[in-house]
Amino acid sequence: MGKAVEGWRQIAGGIAAPQGFYAVGVQAGIKYPDKYDVALIYSQVQAQAAGVYTKNLVKAHPLYLTQNHLRNGLAQAIVVNSGNANACVGDFGDQSALAMAEVVAMFTAVSQDDVLVASTGVIGVEMPIERVLVGIRAASAELLSNVVQDLKGRQDDAPNDGAHRAALAIMTTDTVVKEYAYELPCSQGGVIKLGAMAKGSGMIHPNMGTMLGFLTTDASVPSAVLQRLLREAVEESFNMVTVDGDTSTNDMVLILANGTSGITPSDEDMINFENMVKGMCVQLAKDIARDGEGASKFMEVAVSGAKTKEDARKIARSICGSSLVKAALFGEDANWGRILTAAGYAGADFDPGIVDIFLGDMVVAQGGRGVAFSEETAKEILGRKEVQIRLALNGGEEKATAWGCDLTHEYVTINGSYRT
Amino acid sequence: MGKAVEGWRQIAGGIAAPQGFYAVGVQAGIKYPDKYDVALIYSQVQAQAAGVYTKNLVKAHPLYLTQNHLRNGLAQAIVVNSGNANACVGDFGDQSALAMAEVVAMFTAVSQDDVLVASTGVIGVEMPIERVLVGIRAASAELLSNVVQDLKGRQDDAPNDGAHRAALAIMTTDTVVKEYAYELPCSQGGVIKLGAMAKGSGMIHPNMGTMLGFLTTDASVPSAVLQRLLREAVEESFNMVTVDGDTSTNDMVLILANGTSGITPSDEDMINFENMVKGMCVQLAKDIARDGEGASKFMEVAVSGAKTKEDARKIARSICGSSLVKAALFGEDANWGRILTAAGYAGADFDPGIVDIFLGDMVVAQGGRGVAFSEETAKEILGRKEVQIRLALNGGEEKATAWGCDLTHEYVTINGSYRT
Repeated sequence: MGKAVEGWRQIAGGIAAPQGFYAVGVQAGIKYPDKYDVALIYSQVQAQAAGVYTKNLVKAHPLYLTQNHLRNGLAQAIVVNSGNANACVGDFGDQSALAMAEVVAMFTAVSQDDVLVASTGVIGVEMPIERVLVGIRAASAELLSNVVQDLKGRQDDAPNDGAHRAALAIMTTDTVVKEYAYELPCSQGGVIKLGAMAKGSGMIHPNMGTMLGFLTTDASVPSAVLQRLLREAVEESFNMVTVDGDTSTNDMVLILANGTSGITPSDEDMINFENMVKGMCVQLAKDIARDGEGASKFMEVAVSGAKTKEDARKIARSICGSSLVKAALFGEDANWGRILTAAGYAGADFDPGIVDIFLGDMVVAQGGRGVAFSEETAKEILGRKEVQIRLALNGGEEKATAWGCDLTHEYVTINGSYRT
Repeated sequence: MGKAVEGWRQIAGGIAAPQGFYAVGVQAGIKYPDKYDVALIYSQVQAQAAGVYTKNLVKAHPLYLTQNHLRNGLAQAIVVNSGNANACVGDFGDQSALAMAEVVAMFTAVSQDDVLVASTGVIGVEMPIERVLVGIRAASAELLSNVVQDLKGRQDDAPNDGAHRAALAIMTTDTVVKEYAYELPCSQGGVIKLGAMAKGSGMIHPNMGTMLGFLTTDASVPSAVLQRLLREAVEESFNMVTVDGDTSTNDMVLILANGTSGITPSDEDMINFENMVKGMCVQLAKDIARDGEGASKFMEVAVSGAKTKEDARKIARSICGSSLVKAALFGEDANWGRILTAAGYAGADFDPGIVDIFLGDMVVAQGGRGVAFSEETAKEILGRKEVQIRLALNGGEEKATAWGCDLTHEYVTINGSYRT
């Protein structure tokens, strides 16, 4: 993604860039004293909403609440905490998620059913719920004071880092904050804005992209359309990222459309809008892969010539997820045999005897067998921070791209002592 | 496995322990000058035989030859090389595998159709076939001279390390040689012997256990029975081991039964014989997990109370294969949430709300939620070289056990520079 791709352009403001959205992040001391750990996103008016959730059988407590509150396709606020996953702690977990929604509702005067809740952090430990609720109260107060200032017509150039703090507050082992905003000029005049933030670096694997992602827009789009659009966007983005093969209990991606721009996209604008949402999700997904725990290199695996889309996806993800491919990438070893091997156990249908494999622009295998290539060039390509692997299956028309990272000593160190 | 479990006991002699079997290992200089890298196993008489192979779509060239030669359920020799997988190199690969079988046939006077071929090592590089064939000739010569000495009635106590060298010759990154022999006293008098050797430490994952395994027995058992028995044994052993989630192109397990003991097991003996074969496979599978690349700890995951056997297996393997569980094991972090999470994405049917989890004998979660436990005891349990994780799903009668190892810095180092 660059600026001004396919009609939209990047702007400032992150998750709160679209009209009528506000966001803040506060330090509630959930796990660390000086880390932002509670984020609150708020729309001035009730918004159309949609969500996509982890496929893990074990689901964190807030997921049930959020799925329940989203049944009517409406929402007005999202509260997120890091530092504790609120997963696998029994009734107390359900009560904690409910209390978070209740306190947001109380202090922002939003219907409790319109509050969505997400959590990320360690599993199986009870939330320090008092600290979380105090944090939510502080976040609500700050947020409302921003709303009131805007209603009074505040000096708009006053810097407000609320959205940025919200993006910081959802990070766990992330090393880079992931927030963006785009705007799309519409054929009918005016612009639609799209804001987003995400977190994710460990437990990253397809189904879903194993992370938290939040999108806001001031376009007027009904919930059912948002749901279809989000599902498709997640399929091509977050579900094509793998860091370690572990699908978490807490993943969700939510989108809120509050219509405050007054623009209902025309058919033509809708195509651009959909592409913008997908582009945003791909941008965040790539950021997540790039920020994979302990990663030193980013890998993009592009598969073409598959018989079906699902085959292309399976193969791209299998290669990205192979520990042996990841370790070879770390070691800058042009071990294309591992790439073909990972394709072979992907559970997809293809003919290994006609596959061509490329590292960057260099062909390393043709017709399923190795060709002579310059080890020097291979070293140069694999020495880059971003490495592209391409497989031409030569058996059909479908393609897919997946993103991942290398497997490093650092990954092992981070995950050897996460809980404690 | 100990000695004298369920009627059988451990004996010396490895793969060549059963009557009428011979084995040698030689240094052919395939990849390293001073490493045993060609193994030859030979039966004096044509044997009943069966095989189980990798499920990877990409199969090494020798697999096709071996599957083809095993179609009639008969074999007399197995030749194996390490240092080169003979995979993904086109026609030359098929020709190389065929040449290996031809040279064994020529120098041991066995029918070419009765020679099975296996390879392990780097993928996508052409075999240094001249060196391999010279090695096979030397191995054949030594082997035949042993046969002739036996026919002449040699002093039986003369030490012969041929079988041990064969076991050495199939190793790649293995740090421990894996060879065993058992004998089973039969109700009708006499003993049946079972010999075995295996290799495997990287690319270890279910379907199949991703390794090479060879078993020999002097019992008289028809090929069809061997095939069923081997399939079942592999299901419970090699397919329950995971080191890194990568299923190789070269895996196979072969068994030869030459009947030289003169014993056709009675129904009762057959039960013991089957258990002995399964016990042998489990022993080798555990050795492989223990010898996982860079592993510092061995993990046994026992799942009970599943609705179906397949559910139990999926969950046990998913936990063993989770990078996050493996890293937590390395870091000695009692992160049971990751264990439950890995169970949750196993694709099995269970109720997370009634699961109990144990580390060693200590309960860490009950009814799907954490319980207070002593961090000190947890540290002590996780500090052991062998750690047992138990999940009681409390939803049925089926159970399964899987084996794996931790994820260490060393794994990354080994696999960062395997090819070069």
